[in-house]
Amino acid sequence: MPDAADTDLPTPIEVPNDASLMEKIVNLSKRRGFVFPSAEIYGGFRSTYDYGPIGVQLLRNVKDAWWRSMVQMRDDVVGLDASILSPPAIWEASGHLKNFTDPLVDCKACHERFREDQLEDPRTCPNCGATDSFTEARQFNLMFKTHAGPVEHEGAVAYLRPETAQGMFINFSNVLQSSRKKPPFGIAQIGKSFRNEITPGNFVFRTREFEQMELEFFVPPDEADRWYEYWVDARYQWYVELGIPTEKLRIRPHDPDELSHYSSGTADVEFLFPWGWGELEGIANRGDYDLTQHATHSGEKLDYFDQATNTRYVPHVIEPAAGATRTMMAFLLAAYDEEEVRGEVRTVLRLHPRLAPYKVAVLPLSKKDTLTPLAREVLQLLQPHLMCDYDETQAIGRRYRRQDELGTPYCVTVDFDSLEDRAVTVRERDSMAQDRVAVDDLLGHLLPKLA
Amino acid sequence: MPDAADTDLPTPIEVPNDASLMEKIVNLSKRRGFVFPSAEIYGGFRSTYDYGPIGVQLLRNVKDAWWRSMVQMRDDVVGLDASILSPPAIWEASGHLKNFTDPLVDCKACHERFREDQLEDPRTCPNCGATDSFTEARQFNLMFKTHAGPVEHEGAVAYLRPETAQGMFINFSNVLQSSRKKPPFGIAQIGKSFRNEITPGNFVFRTREFEQMELEFFVPPDEADRWYEYWVDARYQWYVELGIPTEKLRIRPHDPDELSHYSSGTADVEFLFPWGWGELEGIANRGDYDLTQHATHSGEKLDYFDQATNTRYVPHVIEPAAGATRTMMAFLLAAYDEEEVRGEVRTVLRLHPRLAPYKVAVLPLSKKDTLTPLAREVLQLLQPHLMCDYDETQAIGRRYRRQDELGTPYCVTVDFDSLEDRAVTVRERDSMAQDRVAVDDLLGHLLPKLA
Repeated sequence: MPDAADTDLPTPIEVPNDASLMEKIVNLSKRRGFVFPSAEIYGGFRSTYDYGPIGVQLLRNVKDAWWRSMVQMRDDVVGLDASILSPPAIWEASGHLKNFTDPLVDCKACHERFREDQLEDPRTCPNCGATDSFTEARQFNLMFKTHAGPVEHEGAVAYLRPETAQGMFINFSNVLQSSRKKPPFGIAQIGKSFRNEITPGNFVFRTREFEQMELEFFVPPDEADRWYEYWVDARYQWYVELGIPTEKLRIRPHDPDELSHYSSGTADVEFLFPWGWGELEGIANRGDYDLTQHATHSGEKLDYFDQATNTRYVPHVIEPAAGATRTMMAFLLAAYDEEEVRGEVRTVLRLHPRLAPYKVAVLPLSKKDTLTPLAREVLQLLQPHLMCDYDETQAIGRRYRRQDELGTPYCVTVDFDSLEDRAVTVRERDSMAQDRVAVDDLLGHLLPKLA
Repeated sequence: MPDAADTDLPTPIEVPNDASLMEKIVNLSKRRGFVFPSAEIYGGFRSTYDYGPIGVQLLRNVKDAWWRSMVQMRDDVVGLDASILSPPAIWEASGHLKNFTDPLVDCKACHERFREDQLEDPRTCPNCGATDSFTEARQFNLMFKTHAGPVEHEGAVAYLRPETAQGMFINFSNVLQSSRKKPPFGIAQIGKSFRNEITPGNFVFRTREFEQMELEFFVPPDEADRWYEYWVDARYQWYVELGIPTEKLRIRPHDPDELSHYSSGTADVEFLFPWGWGELEGIANRGDYDLTQHATHSGEKLDYFDQATNTRYVPHVIEPAAGATRTMMAFLLAAYDEEEVRGEVRTVLRLHPRLAPYKVAVLPLSKKDTLTPLAREVLQLLQPHLMCDYDETQAIGRRYRRQDELGTPYCVTVDFDSLEDRAVTVRERDSMAQDRVAVDDLLGHLLPKLA
């Protein structure tokens, strides 16, 4: 047992869910390679972020868990991956060109620009203090605009999609015909979206470039309410099953005055962030608004003919729309824990094994050449099945602490006894309990715990 | 055996590798849900494409196979996911702002625009026939430009990255410090890139929005040539292992006059497309150009101090850069096959099992309610482990043909005997051979064949 004292009973430390936790998460993210500010060597760039070696795995695991739950485990949902560049016609039909706006005002004294709906005092400039200095508000569209093709004329205007949803609506007929599904069925998509937010912030919670996980679920109109309830419940459960504690998760139905004019019901799944409750996902009962809008604007029929009942109808849509990047952040916050072990603070990410960036770390007790061949044999045994880290420098205790901070569920230590007995020490992240396991039994020992 | 006659010996049909094959692939892509033209109900949009229910799975599998090979199976490579929106400073340093251009000319007679280097006759307009009608060529930058933030001033200019590579270079220090790797080590990234191509074409081969799979492998300078050879070979083998026949694959070293000024060697992995050899991937020996450029422009040190030898150096970079979407297309083309079975043409995609969109299709022989419970039991048995399709309408022969066109390696048919013997018929895609397998043995029968 390379680090038996590690099994001393730890003392829990209460971690307040406040700004100090945010600071710890941001620091951990930088230090351990979860999230880096984009273009940091050039001073950063407008609230964009890059996902580092650990973050990219965590984000992949969040997205894969969603895809597994929404596509792989169901036979009534298929996937899609639509383009980010899209023509104005789509956003004309969806209403985004007209309505996806924030009201902006300029201060005529200092020329700073503000969101009118976020001004504390609508008469006094918070920058220079001038009174009644604001211009009339004008509507600022939040879509990023660019041009596709060599000439910058009107026909070449392209928008970066502000949501993945429209890619599913405009492909409704293509998917229906090629996949042979019929309502109730859904189309799922994961991908980047872009919103030119005036006030991004809270780390990766609100960023101009972000990733969405959206499902458009098409149902017969008289089944819409039932399916809406179904999806609100199913989506809430997804977060619980992956480890968000129920006391930090709630379903908040929108008030009638918050609803879009076409929606008969919307509920947010909210997480208790350090700054308060914030949306992870919205589930909306959207009626036939989207398909009807695109049918009207494109002149194409977007409906379904039910041969069994000899009726034609426009399906209603239930839309569970989640943010992948902010969901990743919620999992990070929920998993963060500290405890005192032998007078030192142990930081540990108690991530669900499915989400953990590395499942196993293989750690030769020392860097001595004698241990390397067996350590690498163990690594190669595990790698085809599990995402592994391999780390051979520093004292074993420090390497355990590093893996705790990455959320790695198991450390496998190869020591000098291993050369005799072909067994290794398996250390569990949360309890720090250690088992001695034969190399030949190692996969069978680990795989069921990590499924 | 529900379709025993299917085991009649098929007669191979030669499929010419020409425009007729392209037409078949484009039709199959639309009909079966691999690839749809983007915004098709609005007349399409400038050579952008959406990946349908089958295409999204194939593309995911291509990317996952790359990630598995490049990240999961190695302990000297870590992943990254950098932002698409990026500031001019990055592209100033990389040289893209100045050099990533095509020369454009306008015809003064008809106002059409052309790439000067693609004109067959540099004096005669191919559109209107006018002679000596072209303007002077001007350099057109291929990067998409937009603005981030509410004000369109210079500081708000953002470019959509034309390659993922720079995201790795600018994070070199962040990754080095957080991951504790040391040269030789690499950073791998999969993601969308955008190039405002003047002449996109050949279906998804050249599109303005596309997906890349890039590795930047940092090595001590004196090991660069050896690692370059290593990666050229390793990347070629990756395509072979996933089923590209060697007669359709070649390594083409660049001529000295094709090389970038900083590159001491570049080789393309090329595939024999219906229109000739085309690049799937370039492997470049880039020297210290990239890190040095960013160090110079940012003022940050981007080098490595080797404690063992007490030396500091700027690592050299070997870059294997592949196109995910065009690689997917190559796998499709290589897998496409036809044969004659009982007087009918059978179309079959002989995709590697790792790439196949669905691994198994569960097919109740008839839609009769009596078969549904067992068929769904079989589906639920397989779903946690394998991406499955479930299809219960049409004659079983037509459903087999559909799965052949999707490249599904195995069909599992539940028939009326199954209700008695709890066994199912397992049909293999390529040979059409059928086995009777007990439901309880089904996972054990299928999983090893699909690993």
